[in-house]
Amino acid sequence: IATKLPAVGTTIFTVMSALAAEKNAVNLGQGFPDFNCDPKLLEDVTAAMAAGHNQYPPMPGIPALREAIARKISALYGHDYSAADEITVTAGATQAIITAILAVVRAGDEVIVLEPCYDSYVPNIELAGGRVVRVPLVPGTFRPDFDKIAAALTPRTRAIIVNTPHNPSATVWTAAEMRKLEELLAPTDVLVIADEVYEHMVYDGAQHESVARFPGLAARSFIVSSFGKTYHVTGWKVGFVAAPAPLMAEFRKVHQFNVFTVNTPMQHALAQYMAEPGPYLELPAFYQRKRDLFAAGLAQKTRFRLLRSEGSYFQCVDISAVSDLSEAEFCLWLTREIGVAAIPLSAFYGNGFDQRVVRFCFAKKDETLLAALDRLARL
Amino acid sequence: IATKLPAVGTTIFTVMSALAAEKNAVNLGQGFPDFNCDPKLLEDVTAAMAAGHNQYPPMPGIPALREAIARKISALYGHDYSAADEITVTAGATQAIITAILAVVRAGDEVIVLEPCYDSYVPNIELAGGRVVRVPLVPGTFRPDFDKIAAALTPRTRAIIVNTPHNPSATVWTAAEMRKLEELLAPTDVLVIADEVYEHMVYDGAQHESVARFPGLAARSFIVSSFGKTYHVTGWKVGFVAAPAPLMAEFRKVHQFNVFTVNTPMQHALAQYMAEPGPYLELPAFYQRKRDLFAAGLAQKTRFRLLRSEGSYFQCVDISAVSDLSEAEFCLWLTREIGVAAIPLSAFYGNGFDQRVVRFCFAKKDETLLAALDRLARL
Ligand SMILES: CSCCC(=O)C(=O)O
Ligand SMILES: CSCCC(=O)C(=O)O
Repeated sequence: IATKLPAVGTTIFTVMSALAAEKNAVNLGQGFPDFNCDPKLLEDVTAAMAAGHNQYPPMPGIPALREAIARKISALYGHDYSAADEITVTAGATQAIITAILAVVRAGDEVIVLEPCYDSYVPNIELAGGRVVRVPLVPGTFRPDFDKIAAALTPRTRAIIVNTPHNPSATVWTAAEMRKLEELLAPTDVLVIADEVYEHMVYDGAQHESVARFPGLAARSFIVSSFGKTYHVTGWKVGFVAAPAPLMAEFRKVHQFNVFTVNTPMQHALAQYMAEPGPYLELPAFYQRKRDLFAAGLAQKTRFRLLRSEGSYFQCVDISAVSDLSEAEFCLWLTREIGVAAIPLSAFYGNGFDQRVVRFCFAKKDETLLAALDRLARL
Repeated sequence: IATKLPAVGTTIFTVMSALAAEKNAVNLGQGFPDFNCDPKLLEDVTAAMAAGHNQYPPMPGIPALREAIARKISALYGHDYSAADEITVTAGATQAIITAILAVVRAGDEVIVLEPCYDSYVPNIELAGGRVVRVPLVPGTFRPDFDKIAAALTPRTRAIIVNTPHNPSATVWTAAEMRKLEELLAPTDVLVIADEVYEHMVYDGAQHESVARFPGLAARSFIVSSFGKTYHVTGWKVGFVAAPAPLMAEFRKVHQFNVFTVNTPMQHALAQYMAEPGPYLELPAFYQRKRDLFAAGLAQKTRFRLLRSEGSYFQCVDISAVSDLSEAEFCLWLTREIGVAAIPLSAFYGNGFDQRVVRFCFAKKDETLLAALDRLARL
């Protein structure tokens, strides 16, 4: 059957999670927590359902949730979005990204992605009829290379996708880097799709540099975030997009004909829960402790070389001292033989570039991390 | 901003629901129930959340739900789908339809839609880069016109979208009509996207003729249905697709990069709830009584001419004897001045064809229908 994505397989996350389940491995592959969320959030869902909030919500999301999102962005990043016209609730961040792309990328438009990158971006651009322009992050450090980005800009460049904190490398863009991007794009009308799903997971006292902090970027950006990541409910599939009204108008044209709208009781619960900033303000300390626990164990028990995890819930390691296998083969072997699932960084490159680095997710119970470390000690 | 859907506005359903809310009108516009679902279904969600089912489910949906869906289709329509490879849970039927279209419609491919049709089909095809070929249903009766469909088939025809029970006209395709479609497509490799979201709402002893009943159609079809419509939870945004494995493989390639996956606790609850066929087997009688209550009231209290409602939860009426306004102006006026919202059929045509017919939704509490009738009596 001739289709739009002939070369695409099943996402690496699905493949590794399925294998981990089959082999009873500790799953540090796919990025999701293995602990439950705050019980209060669950009570809020139950209350919303009992109150009859089970039918279609307004297309862009319920007003209370959009207002809570706008207040949060204003408080944290100092940019005021109109809840009515500039915020839309989405069925997770992945749906937000494809919707933004389908809205603005016309046949033949170029879209810049910075590799390694999340594996939905490229097929999303292809489905929209766009041309993917791949620009590597600096090998080894995964910092943005502004000379290379500048060289990739053409009159046909429609958008660039930026992701900080970065998946898979766990780097976090600095304010200086964001300003450089702002300057570079200033003379252009290039749009930015800012994947900021790990916005509340930044460590060692650094801060998340949302595009919302930079007026020249905010004016041209779709900001994408995820309640799943922030509140430990990846299975609820609720995220959001913020963008200036003219961009959001185009986004909503597609959104209404993609998912139309998003789970009503979950929206009510999240609106209520967001009234308190506590849960997301506590996230950096919560996950930094897990990062440190896991990193200390790896340093002590394995010969992996650890890359710096500045943000997100991932820890990358160089496997050179441990194995000669390719990243992908190593991850399969590790899952099958050692009983720990990880994700090869090659899955985040179009050409399968192998730099001997794999990614572990540390959004897990301490006991899960310790069990994984015990197994990894056998390497 | 030059975008993919320059001509698209906000969906008529959103516009009319917002106006109905603003004017405190009885909302018989957008298709959703105003009563709550079975409390048991809500308890099942609460139990699933408490059991920790709040993280990513498997990409195609949890196995228990896919198995329940396969069992239902087998029992009702006699076709066996593999739960593993031929069923995928979606974020509602709208997301299922766009995903099927994005998977199979390549740039320049033609897709036949039978007008009047649900308003997402055409923009979905345009987003995929396809060419929309509009074929009218027979004016007045809304039956399929197979001569016209045959004339529209070309070597570039990639798919036809078929919808029964039909929204907005409330007609239900007969077995003879389905067989004609099967014959017509037999010499072609045209795919079918079968929108069957009202599959359990067919009246007067007729039966729903799913494409699954017709082997020549099942082999080329994506069948789309909706738990929101069937179980009175339109706001949960859970639906499903069934298709032969090669088609489903292509569907999942796009699905994984659109929403990736669908609300976990709702999937668990629906899987449990589907174990009993009672709720959907009772639907025809449940809604037929509401249809009859509403239709009798309209006949007695208004000068509308009633069209026959064979299925779905809609009742269409001809407004000629009541008003000289266009359908769209009449619906706005009816909402503002009489306090009852309806949907103009012209919203389901690309050229805004006005045949003096508007659609009411009778999926409402009896008291809501009676309140609407009281107001309509003032016409
Ligand atoms: C949507 S599945 C993958 C979750 C995730 O963000 C990751 O593991 O990178
Ligand atoms: C997705 S909103 C519209 C609901 C519906 O199917 C209709 O009213 O036709």
